[in-house]
Amino acid sequence: MTRVAILGGTGYTALELIRILLRHPDVQITAVTSRSETGHIGVVHPSLLGRLDLKLENLSPAQLRDRADVVFGCLPHVASMEVVPQLLDVGLKVIDLSADYRLNDAAVYEQWYGHAHTDTGRLQSTVYGLPELFADRIPGQQLIANPGCYTSTSILALAPLLAGRLIEPIGIIIDAKSGVSGAGRTPKLNTLFAEANENFTAYSVGNHRHTPEIEQVLTTASGQKVEVIFTPHLVPMDRGIFATIYATPTKVVDQKSLLEQIRSFYAGKPFVRVTDQIPTTKAVSGTNYCDITARVVRGKVVVMAVLDNLIKGASGVAVQNFNLVCGYPEETALIC
Amino acid sequence: MTRVAILGGTGYTALELIRILLRHPDVQITAVTSRSETGHIGVVHPSLLGRLDLKLENLSPAQLRDRADVVFGCLPHVASMEVVPQLLDVGLKVIDLSADYRLNDAAVYEQWYGHAHTDTGRLQSTVYGLPELFADRIPGQQLIANPGCYTSTSILALAPLLAGRLIEPIGIIIDAKSGVSGAGRTPKLNTLFAEANENFTAYSVGNHRHTPEIEQVLTTASGQKVEVIFTPHLVPMDRGIFATIYATPTKVVDQKSLLEQIRSFYAGKPFVRVTDQIPTTKAVSGTNYCDITARVVRGKVVVMAVLDNLIKGASGVAVQNFNLVCGYPEETALIC
Amino acid sequence: MTRVAILGGTGYTALELIRILLRHPDVQITAVTSRSETGHIGVVHPSLLGRLDLKLENLSPAQLRDRADVVFGCLPHVASMEVVPQLLDVGLKVIDLSADYRLNDAAVYEQWYGHAHTDTGRLQSTVYGLPELFADRIPGQQLIANPGCYTSTSILALAPLLAGRLIEPIGIIIDAKSGVSGAGRTPKLNTLFAEANENFTAYSVGNHRHTPEIEQVLTTASGQKVEVIFTPHLVPMDRGIFATIYATPTKVVDQKSLLEQIRSFYAGKPFVRVTDQIPTTKAVSGTNYCDITARVVRGKVVVMAVLDNLIKGASGVAVQNFNLVCGYPEETALIC
Amino acid sequence: MTRVAILGGTGYTALELIRILLRHPDVQITAVTSRSETGHIGVVHPSLLGRLDLKLENLSPAQLRDRADVVFGCLPHVASMEVVPQLLDVGLKVIDLSADYRLNDAAVYEQWYGHAHTDTGRLQSTVYGLPELFADRIPGQQLIANPGCYTSTSILALAPLLAGRLIEPIGIIIDAKSGVSGAGRTPKLNTLFAEANENFTAYSVGNHRHTPEIEQVLTTASGQKVEVIFTPHLVPMDRGIFATIYATPTKVVDQKSLLEQIRSFYAGKPFVRVTDQIPTTKAVSGTNYCDITARVVRGKVVVMAVLDNLIKGASGVAVQNFNLVCGYPEETALIC
Repeated sequence: MTRVAILGGTGYTALELIRILLRHPDVQITAVTSRSETGHIGVVHPSLLGRLDLKLENLSPAQLRDRADVVFGCLPHVASMEVVPQLLDVGLKVIDLSADYRLNDAAVYEQWYGHAHTDTGRLQSTVYGLPELFADRIPGQQLIANPGCYTSTSILALAPLLAGRLIEPIGIIIDAKSGVSGAGRTPKLNTLFAEANENFTAYSVGNHRHTPEIEQVLTTASGQKVEVIFTPHLVPMDRGIFATIYATPTKVVDQKSLLEQIRSFYAGKPFVRVTDQIPTTKAVSGTNYCDITARVVRGKVVVMAVLDNLIKGASGVAVQNFNLVCGYPEETALIC
Repeated sequence: MTRVAILGGTGYTALELIRILLRHPDVQITAVTSRSETGHIGVVHPSLLGRLDLKLENLSPAQLRDRADVVFGCLPHVASMEVVPQLLDVGLKVIDLSADYRLNDAAVYEQWYGHAHTDTGRLQSTVYGLPELFADRIPGQQLIANPGCYTSTSILALAPLLAGRLIEPIGIIIDAKSGVSGAGRTPKLNTLFAEANENFTAYSVGNHRHTPEIEQVLTTASGQKVEVIFTPHLVPMDRGIFATIYATPTKVVDQKSLLEQIRSFYAGKPFVRVTDQIPTTKAVSGTNYCDITARVVRGKVVVMAVLDNLIKGASGVAVQNFNLVCGYPEETALIC
Repeated sequence: MTRVAILGGTGYTALELIRILLRHPDVQITAVTSRSETGHIGVVHPSLLGRLDLKLENLSPAQLRDRADVVFGCLPHVASMEVVPQLLDVGLKVIDLSADYRLNDAAVYEQWYGHAHTDTGRLQSTVYGLPELFADRIPGQQLIANPGCYTSTSILALAPLLAGRLIEPIGIIIDAKSGVSGAGRTPKLNTLFAEANENFTAYSVGNHRHTPEIEQVLTTASGQKVEVIFTPHLVPMDRGIFATIYATPTKVVDQKSLLEQIRSFYAGKPFVRVTDQIPTTKAVSGTNYCDITARVVRGKVVVMAVLDNLIKGASGVAVQNFNLVCGYPEETALIC
Repeated sequence: MTRVAILGGTGYTALELIRILLRHPDVQITAVTSRSETGHIGVVHPSLLGRLDLKLENLSPAQLRDRADVVFGCLPHVASMEVVPQLLDVGLKVIDLSADYRLNDAAVYEQWYGHAHTDTGRLQSTVYGLPELFADRIPGQQLIANPGCYTSTSILALAPLLAGRLIEPIGIIIDAKSGVSGAGRTPKLNTLFAEANENFTAYSVGNHRHTPEIEQVLTTASGQKVEVIFTPHLVPMDRGIFATIYATPTKVVDQKSLLEQIRSFYAGKPFVRVTDQIPTTKAVSGTNYCDITARVVRGKVVVMAVLDNLIKGASGVAVQNFNLVCGYPEETALIC
């Protein structure tokens, strides 16, 4: 039995984490923290009514250490790097869902996030928690940087074809579409129902923070410099990411060879489903699956990938990382 | 040509007012005010891009008098009663969309709105701007209290049957459902897309502020004390109100006699459509219509009424009032 | 291990059944039937890709007996009563999700469903599968009539107050709102996205088929004749039912005493959550919970209840019945 | 006054046409036809209740000639080319909203639509009704081929940059997203609410019928062979198209020069709004506007364009064409 605490319990990723961890036979949730709220978890998240008898608490690292073995960090960036070093110092293991430990380069972090990084010593060594690529590095780690949602979708779609040298690494276009829960639970004008509903738009065109993360991981994983044009869009639905990706093949390819390469790359990986059909976000909603297909259109490679931004894009992969870190079977609590 | 100013231009009712008034052949919009924003109206409301060349301004009553003949007040309650007296003092006509001048009784206002009313002298004399009931009192008025959205739906559905003494005035149940735009454009947790979408709930059960307004107007209009049980609900859609109303008949009635009474009551009224079919909010979306039908189920009278909360429930009826106040044909700019 | 077959595998209730049963440690799904389709289950229901390696088949009762111990019937009414007797004759246990065995009285069935019942001999003896009321009668049964979705919501909300004689059994108003999945997966005009989205309407006012079912079960359960006015509405969301119920108290009651009676009635029942808050459909979406609260408004009792029409309203309660029939713990596979 | 008939009155484009034409001061709608339905237009389209007193009729070309001067054809492809020649023969003017007269080449038509064209003699001479490009050719024509919705979005976005030789004409990627009303009013599984809601997917990847139409018109308009990779997606909203378009610049460009070229190209065109902001489908919903912006991202040109698929993408531009054909001011009935 592993005792688990969740840091920053009011948001959607915390809610999904709790839902998943309540299914985990070897986990006991012992604390859920918040700096702003103190209510019962069943009042803050009514879907948890009767399922978890905890109040939100404001706990110090020392208090957390007394209660938990592993901490899931659901804090915003900057806030996360302020507390993670203290958690590590008291001996806790941390799965950090923020962006603070994803980028290797402090200068790149500062450029995209507008804050100087205050824990630069850990940037190079922290393992990027995308188990389909780095499963062998995750077991036993004390700190895992859980990937971004757009990032996982894009990387899972592209890694096999880059690894197989089937597509050019430069000039890849990622046209990505996300449900609104990706924007979080803090009230903002553009995510109000009456603004986002019956609406479709792009945002952060050319400057979304997942861009350097996608490029860094794909560059590392494929051993060649990768450059992408990344355009995120907001879809009037709760959850789901659909990425339509356009790349130039390095040689003549067809749909069959693309799918074979992707299937072979993910052989034995339980959460990637390579499909002949066009994937839909609905088919992966609430699950830890990423569904991928590919087509060739007028000589261009078109890869399409979907996942649930809150599960495989955040809290599901966090538990997948947790399982690998702690030595539980990778799929525990994640097939439902 | 009447010069018109809109007070409080950032919200949804202001946006709809502008859209309607741009169609009005005898109106010139000369000012749109805001205390918090100063941007161009085409930036604040992108749908107005290229349609109205005005910036949001913070204008005094004197400045407004120099620019306009009539002011539409889209301020929140309390804010409205602070400025309306000044507007009237400088000679402006005011169509006030807030709740501040709807209730006749200052004590009732204070009880439901939690603020002492500061312009009590006008409460008795202000005309309630529901033209289907009070069209003869509206022309020439300097101040009109524009009705609430739930209120108009409920009153329009019930007034004919109460007037005809076909239903008991006590114990009427109004089960009302509204799209989310009714909650306004200020970011709040419960109206975030990811909260309101794929969700249905009730709110303000037994204590919604439109309750005393419904009762006051129906009591006045029917000459008998009316009491309602009013339950509002939030529907995951932008706009539209559907009221399902249950009342006890005073004698044996059938569907035909109910519809005849409602049809006869609204004869010659251009914006109420009495229908044999079950109304839908979609059929009135974007329009100034209120569609009504009635049924008898197990001896109970069931009245169903729909309108667009932003149009017939707010800005459309405001222009209807404006037309009557200024002597334009009632339907001007409102049939589209 | 119990071998399970699903009859009529193309619809939403079958999909949800499969999802739930895949979590059940003691169940093996051995067949999914369809008379119209023959594709792989992962193509018909892409969310099941890689999760269940079966093709849709058209199987006879004898073939089903060779493959399965228990059959879940997801056929439409009429179709169900044509095949259920054959399944029972070959010794299969049947959880029937259709309406065919819910009503005790063949004449009432014919009146509301427009077909003469062809298996009248079983109507009196078939157990109505609402475990919160009839758990002691379900174990060991060969045939269970799984309740309707509106029905379960209404009965669970009203049974405690009727049992406690706190409300009058006549004149109860049930104003119910349902997501669109309740209408099934057969393409129809009124459930097209472009019709149902941004729309709210009532339907089957005064003549919905769940009316006699609600009345029969509440009459049986409470020992007094119950009559309801039932109005269903269509909400633009996938799933969820919200029932707002108005009843006349038999004596002066307050919120506290109502909640106490409901809590006490459901003590030990794992899937009913009595709450002080207003319930929301989102809090029970994807779960087998029914959340209930109550208020007193102007002397009327207002009960509000929510459930997921596809889970607690159909496939979840079907598995709950299955567990009780087969002797598995009631909650198996249903807490997620 | 021009008498107008609408052929195929049950669909969404017919409904929008009627709504727009009811605002037209010089139009009288004299007939709405259907081969399948005979109901009153206010029953088939409840939003038209009380607005148009016509029943759906099945009328011959000769009967139509006695009633109307101009016919709007809202029939499906193939059905349209069967009747349009007869309408022209009896002297009617026709604005055809189907795809039958859009492509110049009968072989291309047959390849993409799977039917031999039966009126090939008119394919070369029929004017393509995109007024922003071909306004000078439209006046006085007897037959206008009204453009497709994706087509107009794509062409309006790309024509200025191709005309200015700012982008390469080959390898243009059009990633387009459409609301569900674009799929029409005929019930189909994939456009059911419970399928399309909370879902996002691509369809017809590499083989959508608007591809040859986009290429033909852009090739003609720009005088150079244009080739596109076109990927349509389905968005869970009623209406709106958002196209994100990626092209390779012919020389170094910046956002300013792109916007200047687009602005200059559309100078004096009332329905194209070039904007610095990212456009949103909501800002053009219900209007005849197409909003366009452009960006440069990592050396690629990214053009974004939005329009309402039922208005500027279908019925609005049809009335714009009608106005030009008949000599009315282009904007009549289209600014609202």
